[in-house]
Amino acid sequence: MSNKLSVGILGATGIVGQRFIQLLENHPWFEVTWLAASDRSEGRPYAEAARWRLKTAIPERVAQLKVSPATPKGAPKIIFAALDASIAKEMEPQFAAAGCAVVSNSSALRMQSDVPLVIPEVNGDHIPLIETQAWRKSSGGFAVTNPNCSAIGLVLALTPLHQRFGLEAVMAVTMQAVSGAGYPGVASLDILGNVIPYIANEEEKMEEETQKLLGKLNGNGIIPAAFAMSAQCNRVAVEDGHTESVSIRLQKKAQPEEIIAAWNDFRAEPQRLRLPSAPEQPVMYLQGIDRPQPRLDVDCGAGMTTSVGRLRKCNVLDWKFTVLSHNTIRGAAGAALLNAELLKAKGYLG
Amino acid sequence: MSNKLSVGILGATGIVGQRFIQLLENHPWFEVTWLAASDRSEGRPYAEAARWRLKTAIPERVAQLKVSPATPKGAPKIIFAALDASIAKEMEPQFAAAGCAVVSNSSALRMQSDVPLVIPEVNGDHIPLIETQAWRKSSGGFAVTNPNCSAIGLVLALTPLHQRFGLEAVMAVTMQAVSGAGYPGVASLDILGNVIPYIANEEEKMEEETQKLLGKLNGNGIIPAAFAMSAQCNRVAVEDGHTESVSIRLQKKAQPEEIIAAWNDFRAEPQRLRLPSAPEQPVMYLQGIDRPQPRLDVDCGAGMTTSVGRLRKCNVLDWKFTVLSHNTIRGAAGAALLNAELLKAKGYLG
Amino acid sequence: MSNKLSVGILGATGIVGQRFIQLLENHPWFEVTWLAASDRSEGRPYAEAARWRLKTAIPERVAQLKVSPATPKGAPKIIFAALDASIAKEMEPQFAAAGCAVVSNSSALRMQSDVPLVIPEVNGDHIPLIETQAWRKSSGGFAVTNPNCSAIGLVLALTPLHQRFGLEAVMAVTMQAVSGAGYPGVASLDILGNVIPYIANEEEKMEEETQKLLGKLNGNGIIPAAFAMSAQCNRVAVEDGHTESVSIRLQKKAQPEEIIAAWNDFRAEPQRLRLPSAPEQPVMYLQGIDRPQPRLDVDCGAGMTTSVGRLRKCNVLDWKFTVLSHNTIRGAAGAALLNAELLKAKGYLG
Amino acid sequence: MSNKLSVGILGATGIVGQRFIQLLENHPWFEVTWLAASDRSEGRPYAEAARWRLKTAIPERVAQLKVSPATPKGAPKIIFAALDASIAKEMEPQFAAAGCAVVSNSSALRMQSDVPLVIPEVNGDHIPLIETQAWRKSSGGFAVTNPNCSAIGLVLALTPLHQRFGLEAVMAVTMQAVSGAGYPGVASLDILGNVIPYIANEEEKMEEETQKLLGKLNGNGIIPAAFAMSAQCNRVAVEDGHTESVSIRLQKKAQPEEIIAAWNDFRAEPQRLRLPSAPEQPVMYLQGIDRPQPRLDVDCGAGMTTSVGRLRKCNVLDWKFTVLSHNTIRGAAGAALLNAELLKAKGYLG
Repeated sequence: MSNKLSVGILGATGIVGQRFIQLLENHPWFEVTWLAASDRSEGRPYAEAARWRLKTAIPERVAQLKVSPATPKGAPKIIFAALDASIAKEMEPQFAAAGCAVVSNSSALRMQSDVPLVIPEVNGDHIPLIETQAWRKSSGGFAVTNPNCSAIGLVLALTPLHQRFGLEAVMAVTMQAVSGAGYPGVASLDILGNVIPYIANEEEKMEEETQKLLGKLNGNGIIPAAFAMSAQCNRVAVEDGHTESVSIRLQKKAQPEEIIAAWNDFRAEPQRLRLPSAPEQPVMYLQGIDRPQPRLDVDCGAGMTTSVGRLRKCNVLDWKFTVLSHNTIRGAAGAALLNAELLKAKGYLG
Repeated sequence: MSNKLSVGILGATGIVGQRFIQLLENHPWFEVTWLAASDRSEGRPYAEAARWRLKTAIPERVAQLKVSPATPKGAPKIIFAALDASIAKEMEPQFAAAGCAVVSNSSALRMQSDVPLVIPEVNGDHIPLIETQAWRKSSGGFAVTNPNCSAIGLVLALTPLHQRFGLEAVMAVTMQAVSGAGYPGVASLDILGNVIPYIANEEEKMEEETQKLLGKLNGNGIIPAAFAMSAQCNRVAVEDGHTESVSIRLQKKAQPEEIIAAWNDFRAEPQRLRLPSAPEQPVMYLQGIDRPQPRLDVDCGAGMTTSVGRLRKCNVLDWKFTVLSHNTIRGAAGAALLNAELLKAKGYLG
Repeated sequence: MSNKLSVGILGATGIVGQRFIQLLENHPWFEVTWLAASDRSEGRPYAEAARWRLKTAIPERVAQLKVSPATPKGAPKIIFAALDASIAKEMEPQFAAAGCAVVSNSSALRMQSDVPLVIPEVNGDHIPLIETQAWRKSSGGFAVTNPNCSAIGLVLALTPLHQRFGLEAVMAVTMQAVSGAGYPGVASLDILGNVIPYIANEEEKMEEETQKLLGKLNGNGIIPAAFAMSAQCNRVAVEDGHTESVSIRLQKKAQPEEIIAAWNDFRAEPQRLRLPSAPEQPVMYLQGIDRPQPRLDVDCGAGMTTSVGRLRKCNVLDWKFTVLSHNTIRGAAGAALLNAELLKAKGYLG
Repeated sequence: MSNKLSVGILGATGIVGQRFIQLLENHPWFEVTWLAASDRSEGRPYAEAARWRLKTAIPERVAQLKVSPATPKGAPKIIFAALDASIAKEMEPQFAAAGCAVVSNSSALRMQSDVPLVIPEVNGDHIPLIETQAWRKSSGGFAVTNPNCSAIGLVLALTPLHQRFGLEAVMAVTMQAVSGAGYPGVASLDILGNVIPYIANEEEKMEEETQKLLGKLNGNGIIPAAFAMSAQCNRVAVEDGHTESVSIRLQKKAQPEEIIAAWNDFRAEPQRLRLPSAPEQPVMYLQGIDRPQPRLDVDCGAGMTTSVGRLRKCNVLDWKFTVLSHNTIRGAAGAALLNAELLKAKGYLG
């Protein structure tokens, strides 16, 4: 019998659920023993219930697992949640109330004042907010969330600069991959040869999540970061990888080589703790004049490293550059997994 | 024999050259009687020399035209130029010196201080700069240029706002179609499932051309507009249509309905003069929450109308919105053609 | 008041329904006065109910039309049907039983023995089969169908050859556009950078419909054509236009120039009757070594001409060539419209 | 110092050259010590000379290697050649004449009567043809080739069937990836939203190479296989992976389960010899109703396994099915590498 911690996945058949299964194969600490999805999947072997869309094969053991009802009864105590926000809003609190550690990728609880929104390299110190949750007090359960797939790459690129030079203003224009919309998600007739300059609620999420992530824990809440933040979100014909054109204004003067060093030298708690899914280098500056590009760079650091390139002066703010990160690994399943690893390392997972 | 003015096309076999031929078919004022391209095309019928990439057929009469040597000898007095900048730099002055009106889409002469860079709806009053050209004085010939395909849609969208409210700052992030790079241009391996966050010299062109276009003619030169301007240019997997995510700061307060009215009400000299290629409405605001989109809106106004959408507040500057314009019609061949029509209407073409 | 015949559209909000509306704008004989779609559209103005996906604008008058309940009550006597097969199977008989002429693009009734499956250039002489329909006898109503979008281009290309040389065997491999699957249809994650070698029931439809179309009316039924027919269907990342690689064996020897002449010379009843939607030339052979291509040739004959190219010897059968036709015009809405025009010309529409 | 055999790469900067470098990183037997490309690359470090288009990084040691002149002087005795056919035709004989083992992916020498065209799983017994080469006799050098990227997957799928049931006729329609055309190769304007039904000389290569591969060595030459073979080749918007719709007629009756078993059970010399690049299973039948698909299955067996699916009856020949193989791994660099491994195992590489 394995010594690993049993974990369950809510929303296991979707694109992010599939990534969870892929990333958890051979994980040193966690083992998937329970899967739940929508009603019509219940009782069927996973391999039959899911329309698997990844290039690697379904891990043999998971393929055979029967899909369980999506209720806490019989579920393990650690739950990765990859549900649509509307369902997550009802279901995640049920699992937390039942004593589960809910490590969620959904937007449902992200902005709730007692729920930490965490990127381990950025604000692991927000995790104690868990202790203010009613679930924690009653059952020991709690919820931790990771940000939107478009916010996470941006915030990883901003953090080293915010720490060294202080951010005053940030403008980000995204060109987001279709996998960010799940499956079936974006219709092919909408995206072939096209750009869609709109993703529902995405700009709002990017703006408020960025400020919560870079905010400070103060007693029982987070004081959001004070810089101005504006996002414009577009969908493009890319499978995986959100590319962003970013401009920033800094509080302190910085030379380009100092900015690049800030990115390349950036290391944080996950690297120090050697968490299994932590990339060696969270942010990497690429020298190529036309990089990063999703087709070539999305798998940087096994999809956990944010790549940055094209740093140059901005005539309106101070600096502009391009950011790329893998939206279903670093931006979703890998983000939640790294959160779970940090929770384990800090003793929250028993 | 036709009463139309004979025109020639330099660079007739390229993507923009083909658009010239398409747009000039059945033109009420102009008739293509002369075509030139690279040496290896010389002497061959156009239909054989060109690798035609448009959906409409090659006009029968043009198909038979023999490709001429690219020298002013034997060329008509009105020349549309669709050459690569490096070649244009040498060739366009030769034609102007030989007495031709060179209506150019190339970047070679755009920023030269005595060459007007013109969008007829924006700065037709810069045309008298022609009179300062040495060619004009010696042979009667002259050169007029239109802006880069990424600048023109933006400037059309900015002009009504600049006129009513005054621009203080502009940030534009482009998602540009592959046809903007000509043919063969972008390799398919570079763009399938990809975004390329770099187009050589494009950001510089957008920034300086925008300020020259919105500048003021003062004696023998143009005083560039004073607002701050920053561009970031990306290539995406779209055939035709440059989409741009734009943020602006205005000098005067404006309500959203005033901004939308400024766009929709905007009419200028080409509309008043009823120039054959002038769109009824140069800028059109689309109400759809996810518009404009290149696949659906690029042909708006036969490709001569710039469409705008998604006006909303910006947390960093004042307003943000999306702009779309057809890069090889309004952004290239149609731009030059409208310039020629304005020149004709003003008596510059004899 | 218009003298045109009132027509209704069942399934008006889908991709084919939109094409019907586009093609019927300014039609000389027919006028859209009634639209029906799914329950949730009922009572809403069409412009609101439909997610319009075409480049041309919604015709103003249709945009305002309220979507009606999908029942014969209040519907006009001529109904274009663009429903999913499962719904069509129930609904089309209701309209025919109520006295309507149902001109259907659905597969539901195509292979029913008393329902004509018609391409006007191919087998307009199958139309009298209508008289055997029970609906016809009871209410005067009837149903006529057009073939699947993948069969129609093929059969148009085969017909001139079958007439002159006799077909013995046909193999067709398709590369079909995503619009053939409707909207939302194919998920973008399934088709970007991909080929899907399967379309449910498509190969069976192509095979049996081709043989019914080229069959002979004999008393109360159709005797299918006797040649062997094999289809393989693939989906590719193309918006509009089904491309097919075809091989055939002929009964009589033929020279390539005879085959090409058979295609280019082919004219039929719709051309003789000058039906409004009939293309001047139903089949056109393109000389270019790499044609037809969907991006360049799909709109040939306003989307009603099938283009053919690359005729060459086949080592297994006799000849091979490439066929292209527009799947939502000639392959769907235009097909039904031409059927209706033929019915009108023959006096079936009162 | 390494005990590995030194190898050189001709055409090292192209797409196939890059694959060679990728596949040879950490190879147990071979080590890249020499690279040559076009004149303008000469003398520059490889990382600078090549426009690297793969997702994995350039191996550090190779990145630093200076590009050598493309002459045998100073080159190692084992040369992988990834040159365009026109250049290969001149250069490969020079290297063979100078005593090198030229393991070529080019089409230049494939059909030359004394040059083996080899897939190790199919016709390793053709290798002794080397001994008839004049180069072999004079200098010890020789040339061995692998087939075209479109032929190799097909022939791997055909071989087990030919061995058990005998082929009588084969028809193949390809949908080929753009990487097969090299870099820059196919222009993006030609392939976005398009199918190109033509690839120069490809159909001829597929037809004649298939018959040579499945032919028999007889004294000093190969007697081609006698079955009829017809190919139609199309280019589609896929990055990597050639998909083919195939129909066959067999000499002996076969049940579908026997055919599938023939594929899945197929093992050959490379598997028995455990060659480093040999896939465990050369041909794999996929059960999914819509498989194989390039996006999901191209990397099967690290790109060395040909996947097959959708076996079903054909009304014209006997059986039809879909084949997929990775065109730059199994179809190019991996093919040559496996040839080299077989040569080494058989003692041809000293």
